[in-house]
Amino acid sequence: MTQNANPGLFLTFEGIDGSGKSTQCRLLRDTLQTAGRECVLTREPGGSPGAEEIRRMVLEGDPDKWSAETEILLFTAARRDHMERTILPALDQGKVIICDRFADSTRMYQGLSRGDLRATVDQLHNLMIGREPDLTLLIDMDPTKGLARAKGRQGSEERFEDFGLPLQQQMRAGFLALAQDFPDRFRVIDGDRPIDTVAADVQAHVQNALASKAAS
Amino acid sequence: MTQNANPGLFLTFEGIDGSGKSTQCRLLRDTLQTAGRECVLTREPGGSPGAEEIRRMVLEGDPDKWSAETEILLFTAARRDHMERTILPALDQGKVIICDRFADSTRMYQGLSRGDLRATVDQLHNLMIGREPDLTLLIDMDPTKGLARAKGRQGSEERFEDFGLPLQQQMRAGFLALAQDFPDRFRVIDGDRPIDTVAADVQAHVQNALASKAAS
Repeated sequence: MTQNANPGLFLTFEGIDGSGKSTQCRLLRDTLQTAGRECVLTREPGGSPGAEEIRRMVLEGDPDKWSAETEILLFTAARRDHMERTILPALDQGKVIICDRFADSTRMYQGLSRGDLRATVDQLHNLMIGREPDLTLLIDMDPTKGLARAKGRQGSEERFEDFGLPLQQQMRAGFLALAQDFPDRFRVIDGDRPIDTVAADVQAHVQNALASKAAS
Repeated sequence: MTQNANPGLFLTFEGIDGSGKSTQCRLLRDTLQTAGRECVLTREPGGSPGAEEIRRMVLEGDPDKWSAETEILLFTAARRDHMERTILPALDQGKVIICDRFADSTRMYQGLSRGDLRATVDQLHNLMIGREPDLTLLIDMDPTKGLARAKGRQGSEERFEDFGLPLQQQMRAGFLALAQDFPDRFRVIDGDRPIDTVAADVQAHVQNALASKAAS
């Protein structure tokens, strides 16, 4: 999978649970579409029929059903399918991909929280995925507020939102460290502000990315 | 996963479809159990509840449902689960594992037949599995006879047996080359003889392996 050679733009949103990623993804899609830009809004784990099937298999049942290592392999399989069937074809057509979570979430949730497996996650990513997003928007958030927001939602897939405040604090610090590891593609946005203010920051970063893509 | 440090013995059977692997697995299990040796008969893909779930997901539906790369990731996830939940615990208890197909089948069927992915299969195996069997019995067979035998069987999982004679010939040559790559653990057995004759050869190799395991 070649790096950033496609005409489209590959955007990912990352952050702890309840940080407002999904809302910002939808707002960005609406704004870009209104401006006449073709977008694909997608998410991980999932985002293609095969990857959604893997998602259901991983998220259903006992949290200890799979070891951390097996879970990393299954998420990498889902990501490979998502890349091949959804992301790369859309990028080849010049579309903007807006993806709610991507490999950085695996680096955090499987690589950090389920054991010291960050190196394994990275090796597997380099071997089987290779490609990074053009731009990653990290919606940074006070974990106390994020957790309250996440718990207020209804939904059957609570597995990854049920680890409590210490995990969310560890994940927040992990994401901020990751942003420093990849300064070229990460932009950190303060998510603890009104939705429209956050959305304005998101759009400013995306407009910059579209402009520099058009110039290159 | 440490290499061969467990007190048990890890045996795998490999070969083209219809070579008689499954029959020989069962005969060996019966013989060892009669002699008072605890055995676990298992198979891949599958061999643990999670791995059987992955097996069903991969084998059901359209053969083009997954790319070769995604399939390799899914089989490696299944193998990791099989190792953790079935194989390693039994080896730790000193049991003999008899496994119908293992990583060598992925090296052949996904690594060779679905593209030139042998290096990817090997890298993924080294990263996420690591362990090789103590002894691999390759039941070698004239593909014309093997294919006729495989086609005579009933079963819904015909995907990997439906590629015809040229594939079987390529796989036979591939398995024989693999046996030369790993001479310490591979034994090639002529499967084109009566079942009892083949079984006697199998048992001789296994008795040697048990004796050298006991001596070490």
